[in-house]
Amino acid sequence: MSALARREGTDRDIEAMPPLPDRAAERLEAFLGRVEGLADTLIGYPCSQDFDYSELSPFLRYSLNNVGDPFADSIYRENTFEFERDVVAFFQHHLRAPTGETWGYVTSGGTEGNLYGLYLGREIHPDGVVYYSEHTHYSVAKIVRVLGARSIMIRGRPDGEIDYDDLYETLKMRRDVPPIIMANIGTTMHGAIDNLSTIQAMLTDLAITRRYIHADAALSGMILPWVEDPQPFGFDSGIDSISVSGHKLIGSPMPSGVALALRRNVDRVARSVEYVGCMDTTIAGSRNALSPLVLWSAIERWGADGLRRRTLRAIDTAAYAVERFHEHGIRAWRHRNSVTVVFPRPDGSIINRWQMAPQRDIAHIITMPHVGRRHVDALISEISATSRPAPGGSP
Amino acid sequence: MSALARREGTDRDIEAMPPLPDRAAERLEAFLGRVEGLADTLIGYPCSQDFDYSELSPFLRYSLNNVGDPFADSIYRENTFEFERDVVAFFQHHLRAPTGETWGYVTSGGTEGNLYGLYLGREIHPDGVVYYSEHTHYSVAKIVRVLGARSIMIRGRPDGEIDYDDLYETLKMRRDVPPIIMANIGTTMHGAIDNLSTIQAMLTDLAITRRYIHADAALSGMILPWVEDPQPFGFDSGIDSISVSGHKLIGSPMPSGVALALRRNVDRVARSVEYVGCMDTTIAGSRNALSPLVLWSAIERWGADGLRRRTLRAIDTAAYAVERFHEHGIRAWRHRNSVTVVFPRPDGSIINRWQMAPQRDIAHIITMPHVGRRHVDALISEISATSRPAPGGSP
Repeated sequence: MSALARREGTDRDIEAMPPLPDRAAERLEAFLGRVEGLADTLIGYPCSQDFDYSELSPFLRYSLNNVGDPFADSIYRENTFEFERDVVAFFQHHLRAPTGETWGYVTSGGTEGNLYGLYLGREIHPDGVVYYSEHTHYSVAKIVRVLGARSIMIRGRPDGEIDYDDLYETLKMRRDVPPIIMANIGTTMHGAIDNLSTIQAMLTDLAITRRYIHADAALSGMILPWVEDPQPFGFDSGIDSISVSGHKLIGSPMPSGVALALRRNVDRVARSVEYVGCMDTTIAGSRNALSPLVLWSAIERWGADGLRRRTLRAIDTAAYAVERFHEHGIRAWRHRNSVTVVFPRPDGSIINRWQMAPQRDIAHIITMPHVGRRHVDALISEISATSRPAPGGSP
Repeated sequence: MSALARREGTDRDIEAMPPLPDRAAERLEAFLGRVEGLADTLIGYPCSQDFDYSELSPFLRYSLNNVGDPFADSIYRENTFEFERDVVAFFQHHLRAPTGETWGYVTSGGTEGNLYGLYLGREIHPDGVVYYSEHTHYSVAKIVRVLGARSIMIRGRPDGEIDYDDLYETLKMRRDVPPIIMANIGTTMHGAIDNLSTIQAMLTDLAITRRYIHADAALSGMILPWVEDPQPFGFDSGIDSISVSGHKLIGSPMPSGVALALRRNVDRVARSVEYVGCMDTTIAGSRNALSPLVLWSAIERWGADGLRRRTLRAIDTAAYAVERFHEHGIRAWRHRNSVTVVFPRPDGSIINRWQMAPQRDIAHIITMPHVGRRHVDALISEISATSRPAPGGSP
């Protein structure tokens, strides 16, 4: 007997929630049908679709809330802190955090994770300047504005990486201000990874010791742990904080993410704000407690081995796509360890049908684990059928 | 046949998600049992528990995402924008927004809504100072810090309202800086409502025309629309923006909220940030698309009449609680139109069992719709059984 039924039984004064009116129920049913149709053509966004978390349905009856720090005690005990801590530990391990030296929590998505990292950077270096490449996700410009931080946008290379020469020259000209560097570990459009070793070498070369590096690893943060020869991406590459999405490689019915940061920075900021009387460990107060359950379930169900298998298959599909494009005389390419396949922008009808986000003369597909070879084949025959000789694409 | 099953059938190369391992499934089952037990004693937080949204279970299979502005078109069509727009319209109507003059969206909760409102205020008045009373939710201090805004905390009255004399004197001393006033429409601890008419009169009296008022109406924003003689709370009281929670009076398995703001301010800020190349209408980029479905379902299932009935019953339970406390010689009180019943801080064991958030010498219960007279009776007998003559409580 559910708590709800029990409550209904004992509390004659409490009115049960009425069912959906027929018209609304029909609308919902029709909408579900449309969503089913859409999910199958979703190959333009980095959102996995190969999941079914219906084991979590019973929790749609409860007012779960992970208010505040998952590592603290909460008076609001209807929380999933114990699962959230497991999720954070999994990410800490695979993002190569030294044991005990980072702290983290499950966020509502990439924006909160990047806001958290850049907020820490700004608090530690109030006079700092945020540097980010022009290929950075547009939300970072918004975050910088919310923070009221000074920032400089660095040129990007045509393949999506930051222009290291421009970064170096800019750092060199402003050695008196601490840089807060937003590094892309997988850009939105090209799947490009800013080279953390190169960036570290620059800072060493310029003797800049007061600096902060935040990694936006929304997508690739759950790809690189599983490949044999990853580009630098984790705490072993000298980053201060990282944000990884949960609804991308892993897959989730709602956006989520994990933010991790060096504990010494978190503690320092927490101490410095104590006098204003706010506990300052999470950006949001009330937090979604279903998301940690979703991520925990995915980790338990796939395991590290399953996540590795899925990721390698996704990379394999990306390699297959590039080959097939080439067979059809279409210039397509991808970065190493990337599932983002870039090719010349196709017709509007194709962009629309396959839910692709084009940019100027290029478009991409992202071969998430739910994308099969049949999707790739179907897309390429559609493009071939409409195609004019195409210029676009980069290297 | 579900899209998932269909995909599994056609894509031999796609691995189906394995089920939960037995040990994990047992853990989840045990956790569900604990949550059921906790939900029944949840009388100290403003989170309704009288719902069951299991009609939304099928959506736990899809990667829904309301990325960006719900009133714009999105290439990512697996969204619930159409439901979100209905939810926003419902809130616009009941929060007394003049037709066509506000814009809004479904947030991840109160923090995002308050951040949104104060961010708009700061953008419109970059030289402004944020004023908020000491009874304001602690997250506002964090938000002000994230925004890097100047702020002054105003004294609070013992009953939870802002100290109007202190506010007036502070405004008067700084007539050269535009005030950004954070008004509480229902404080966390006392359920107190800052008087918007009094605040407006002060600003008029001091001839301060450059000003911004944001209302944090997390709980009372869904109480006041349903009572006969509400305190000023909506756009007809001259506010610029408002944040109301979805997981409080309405009830939701995950935190959510609605943020509304005057369209002319939203447009002005959007225009002014256009040059940085970011669409700036929502704080988060990827947004939870299940929350709008939850709120839409609640609105459809209860309707305005049902929400009114539930709210009036909750207020009735609060009145009953005050009476019963008084019968037992315990000083308890509440504000008009409030479901927050304040009384002297009881023993730690009682605080823990009923999940109450005490503050110094007081505690409260919040008689949300799932709280019945039996809860009130049980609590009061426990307190009476342990009680020492108590000083606390205010007016």
